[in-house]
Amino acid sequence: MPLSPDQQAEIDSLRAQPRQTLRAVSEGMEAHLYKAVPVLDHGFVRVIDYMGDDAAICQAARVSYGRGTKSVQNDEGLIRYLMRHWHSTPFEMCEVKLHVKLPVFVARQWIRHRTANVNEYSARYSILDREFYIPQPDALAAQSVINNQGRGEALSGEEAARVLEWLKADAGRAYDHYEAMIGDTAPDGSAQAGLARELARMNLPANIYTQWYWKVDLHNLFHFLRLRADAHAQYEIRVYADAICEMVKDWVPAAYAAFEDYRMGGVTLSATGVACLRRMLAGEAVTQETSGMSKGEWREFGGGLGVSRLGDLVGSPLFRMPFARGRSR
Amino acid sequence: MPLSPDQQAEIDSLRAQPRQTLRAVSEGMEAHLYKAVPVLDHGFVRVIDYMGDDAAICQAARVSYGRGTKSVQNDEGLIRYLMRHWHSTPFEMCEVKLHVKLPVFVARQWIRHRTANVNEYSARYSILDREFYIPQPDALAAQSVINNQGRGEALSGEEAARVLEWLKADAGRAYDHYEAMIGDTAPDGSAQAGLARELARMNLPANIYTQWYWKVDLHNLFHFLRLRADAHAQYEIRVYADAICEMVKDWVPAAYAAFEDYRMGGVTLSATGVACLRRMLAGEAVTQETSGMSKGEWREFGGGLGVSRLGDLVGSPLFRMPFARGRSR
Amino acid sequence: MPLSPDQQAEIDSLRAQPRQTLRAVSEGMEAHLYKAVPVLDHGFVRVIDYMGDDAAICQAARVSYGRGTKSVQNDEGLIRYLMRHWHSTPFEMCEVKLHVKLPVFVARQWIRHRTANVNEYSARYSILDREFYIPQPDALAAQSVINNQGRGEALSGEEAARVLEWLKADAGRAYDHYEAMIGDTAPDGSAQAGLARELARMNLPANIYTQWYWKVDLHNLFHFLRLRADAHAQYEIRVYADAICEMVKDWVPAAYAAFEDYRMGGVTLSATGVACLRRMLAGEAVTQETSGMSKGEWREFGGGLGVSRLGDLVGSPLFRMPFARGRSR
Amino acid sequence: MPLSPDQQAEIDSLRAQPRQTLRAVSEGMEAHLYKAVPVLDHGFVRVIDYMGDDAAICQAARVSYGRGTKSVQNDEGLIRYLMRHWHSTPFEMCEVKLHVKLPVFVARQWIRHRTANVNEYSARYSILDREFYIPQPDALAAQSVINNQGRGEALSGEEAARVLEWLKADAGRAYDHYEAMIGDTAPDGSAQAGLARELARMNLPANIYTQWYWKVDLHNLFHFLRLRADAHAQYEIRVYADAICEMVKDWVPAAYAAFEDYRMGGVTLSATGVACLRRMLAGEAVTQETSGMSKGEWREFGGGLGVSRLGDLVGSPLFRMPFARGRSR
Repeated sequence: MPLSPDQQAEIDSLRAQPRQTLRAVSEGMEAHLYKAVPVLDHGFVRVIDYMGDDAAICQAARVSYGRGTKSVQNDEGLIRYLMRHWHSTPFEMCEVKLHVKLPVFVARQWIRHRTANVNEYSARYSILDREFYIPQPDALAAQSVINNQGRGEALSGEEAARVLEWLKADAGRAYDHYEAMIGDTAPDGSAQAGLARELARMNLPANIYTQWYWKVDLHNLFHFLRLRADAHAQYEIRVYADAICEMVKDWVPAAYAAFEDYRMGGVTLSATGVACLRRMLAGEAVTQETSGMSKGEWREFGGGLGVSRLGDLVGSPLFRMPFARGRSR
Repeated sequence: MPLSPDQQAEIDSLRAQPRQTLRAVSEGMEAHLYKAVPVLDHGFVRVIDYMGDDAAICQAARVSYGRGTKSVQNDEGLIRYLMRHWHSTPFEMCEVKLHVKLPVFVARQWIRHRTANVNEYSARYSILDREFYIPQPDALAAQSVINNQGRGEALSGEEAARVLEWLKADAGRAYDHYEAMIGDTAPDGSAQAGLARELARMNLPANIYTQWYWKVDLHNLFHFLRLRADAHAQYEIRVYADAICEMVKDWVPAAYAAFEDYRMGGVTLSATGVACLRRMLAGEAVTQETSGMSKGEWREFGGGLGVSRLGDLVGSPLFRMPFARGRSR
Repeated sequence: MPLSPDQQAEIDSLRAQPRQTLRAVSEGMEAHLYKAVPVLDHGFVRVIDYMGDDAAICQAARVSYGRGTKSVQNDEGLIRYLMRHWHSTPFEMCEVKLHVKLPVFVARQWIRHRTANVNEYSARYSILDREFYIPQPDALAAQSVINNQGRGEALSGEEAARVLEWLKADAGRAYDHYEAMIGDTAPDGSAQAGLARELARMNLPANIYTQWYWKVDLHNLFHFLRLRADAHAQYEIRVYADAICEMVKDWVPAAYAAFEDYRMGGVTLSATGVACLRRMLAGEAVTQETSGMSKGEWREFGGGLGVSRLGDLVGSPLFRMPFARGRSR
Repeated sequence: MPLSPDQQAEIDSLRAQPRQTLRAVSEGMEAHLYKAVPVLDHGFVRVIDYMGDDAAICQAARVSYGRGTKSVQNDEGLIRYLMRHWHSTPFEMCEVKLHVKLPVFVARQWIRHRTANVNEYSARYSILDREFYIPQPDALAAQSVINNQGRGEALSGEEAARVLEWLKADAGRAYDHYEAMIGDTAPDGSAQAGLARELARMNLPANIYTQWYWKVDLHNLFHFLRLRADAHAQYEIRVYADAICEMVKDWVPAAYAAFEDYRMGGVTLSATGVACLRRMLAGEAVTQETSGMSKGEWREFGGGLGVSRLGDLVGSPLFRMPFARGRSR
């Protein structure tokens, strides 16, 4: 349970004070405001503020296309048209501000998305709390034997127990020493100067929790979600992306539906892949050697990168491998 | 008068429909929403949406600095502290969306500020209106004889009349031909194919009006305002910046006051400039030749770049030249 | 012919002075350096500088993936892997600086790509040359009757002649008045103050040529090329993109080949599109009404957005329409 | 000593192979290429590539200002003019690519500078080395008693010894467990699955070293250096900034000199500060209470933010406090 009673009371208080505004309002998002959605063992995501709604996307698009957009008769159709043709600027006209509590190693991946505004809790100024991410047993995965990036099966038995024990003990000891280093009392009870916080933090492991405000426009948020809610993303960031997807679905339902159809559920084929399919459907028995693809590319052509879905549809046994790209379901 | 009756009715209608929200509300900005502030002869600026207020800046800063910010007891003090120490990320937590109608040559300057979101009316899809910026007589300035960039005195008499006549006649003729090229009827009344809009627009001059939605965070807006509300900015963009300043002042009064004190009204000296001042105050008669500065730099040291203000205060006759940098008043 | 003898002599001089460097060198790009490739009637593109080559992309990727990339045995395979999996940061490690001369209405489209560095010729400080883009007859296209954006057939006969005459006459007159306004002599030979350049420029039409230095990393350049070398891009910017494609092909041949295969020649299907295909291949006669698509989307599904290529391969008569998306050939 | 013999041999090999280029060459930077400058106990910075030199800055500026820049007769004068007037785009025309090895807690500060390209060593794919930053005794500072951010005196005696012992022991144990978790052999010699690398890394502390390629333009690099080579920056990032300053000085000597004069050595006063100075020089005994400043601002007005330099020059005893802002020397 990541929230203290004080925090819950603050949320309740904020939600008890509606005010009047002339701005665009998304009822779906109002229902989310300030509430913390728990993620992992101590983390959360919550919406602090938002700007715009589905109608605001269309309004901005109609400024661009003027009379030209009259033929698209309703907002949903226009939003699908914009998404389909990669007209991204109208989606940039919506903005959201999230408060996220997350482990440092997740924050390090997240921050690579540069087109966003961030205010992170500063361990130069302030003292971090004693909270560490310790995976649930089913998330304690082995290294994949197929590729260098993915995960394999969950660890079991003594190995799992040993890993959990090390993670807990090392984090606890590191935090004990962190506290002892910055405190004004030495272990023997005498006074000490206390190490600077900006130095003491270096002793803390990457599973300690940090938090930040993260503000991003809808176009860049969709880009983040496409990469981070994907089955290839690390589980520990994907659960945050999944939680955000649920919020976005309520905030801008039409835009989110178009995003699901064209981005998350979309399939991309290379020119070489199309040419191979054409030969195969014409009856040729194409092999990796004659495909013009590398071994890795051939494997992904069959089993990954969305082609498996296509494989299902063209009925070729080649494509019967499990779907490996796109959002996991 | 830049607004049609239909547009005014739409604004009135939008302002007549308050809704409830749980978000931060700035009463000062609510009063501006949707209203069009006239700028130049056919242009305007109006606020379409905003996110955050002074308190939201502090809230984000307190996430960063945690307990460390408790010592700054009130929001205004914290905001001044952030501005003074160039802690820019809390200001990025506020966002504003403007609808601007402006001449194309102003839009070309404006768009150079890259950290913003833009949806511009598209002359590929749509037909531009017959509206051109024609300067008022007192804005019809001569080329400066001092530098290549600035303006001198206003033109007078026949020269001014001749310029205005050319601007009006050329714009009118260009638009007549634009309309004739894209129309489906030839001058002799017969049918014609009609030139593609994306080509016909090339005949239109840079004083034709365009419009866009422009969305930006407060930090980057301050940067825009510092450069474009400055006395060195071209008059035709400065009037837009001035109009936006009035809105920002009502939106985030504490942040705007800090911006005025530390940025718009601030004075910057180079290391060389400081060294010269020191020598002068010690009684040395420093000249350009002995200053280590170029002629241009020496001129600006005395009369420009804020040093003239300093000149007033140290009482040196060297600095009696008119103040040339910083926001015009 | 866009280059003056002086400009050609300067290029020859720069190309006659090789120097030694320890940096990565791309022989293919060295052959292009400084040379101006003519585009449109007075424009050009030329390479002023570049950083990195195919090997530099791999070097950066190997920093990221360390030992994990050893399994990809050669640079070409690694580059294809990176492109296929949207690992964009290694491509950001290459940079190019171009000098481009282009009509203002093309520059206005181009500048919308924000992740780039630009130095444009300033008409506030300097005087623009008397050079205007006048389309060749076969580029003088009618407005498309299918959509608001595209072009139809070329204009013919008197209509074409009339348009060309207007474009030339209006541009010439506008420039005459521009010169007369900024000059120091009135038409009657008497002295005049001369209008400020920053104002006089407003009289010039959007087909006047400007020029700039444009610096961009390879990832963002690929994004620009995918949009602007596409058949849907306006012809007048596409010819610039095409010219740049030829340079990039010689600069980073492996990366360019991967870009062609996965981006320019790639095909994207929506989840709805995949579901429809599946039903059709199972023998169902899907119509727009039963497809779950709008009319526009259905038309594009058959004839546009790459599906026509897929159409060829699955042999459905539905898909026999000409290929409408992806780079024109 | 951060480089292995293999690494040194690779550097020597790269430096032994000069090639011919037609591009701009900076001899000062060629002397740095590939060489690793040691920073902290295991870190380094080295230049991998660069684009442009002082002349390239001027060349880009002259494209912008055309004939208008002829009056600035030499490159150094032009560069100083550009820096003085915040014309930043010509500085963006130079680019540099660095290879940096640095502790994770330093990397977390560094990455906040968003306008740069980064390829970091991935602990999802690869195994981190056993290398941790352990401060030298004189860098083992106490928390400042003046503000929450800075450092005080170095720890001494038993306290220092205790901190160093904890830092070393905790890092070593964490790494032992990291290795044991990802290995394929359990402590008892039996086979084990091995934890996924992307999970095991969470046990490692923030003083472990990572490395990346970092590519940035000169304008944004100057911004980074102004903040990170400043006396207020954390020592552990400042030493990297200092090392980069030495490279930039050799790369673009004129631009670096202007940067030192106008940015690093510059002094900024607020409007309120200027008004106070004016009153004081007129003989008034201004106190914090009558100054219009908060206590913190008044303290900084006297002793910090460059005003102390000004204090020296105006001879007021108020300003005799040590200079606290700007680059430490």
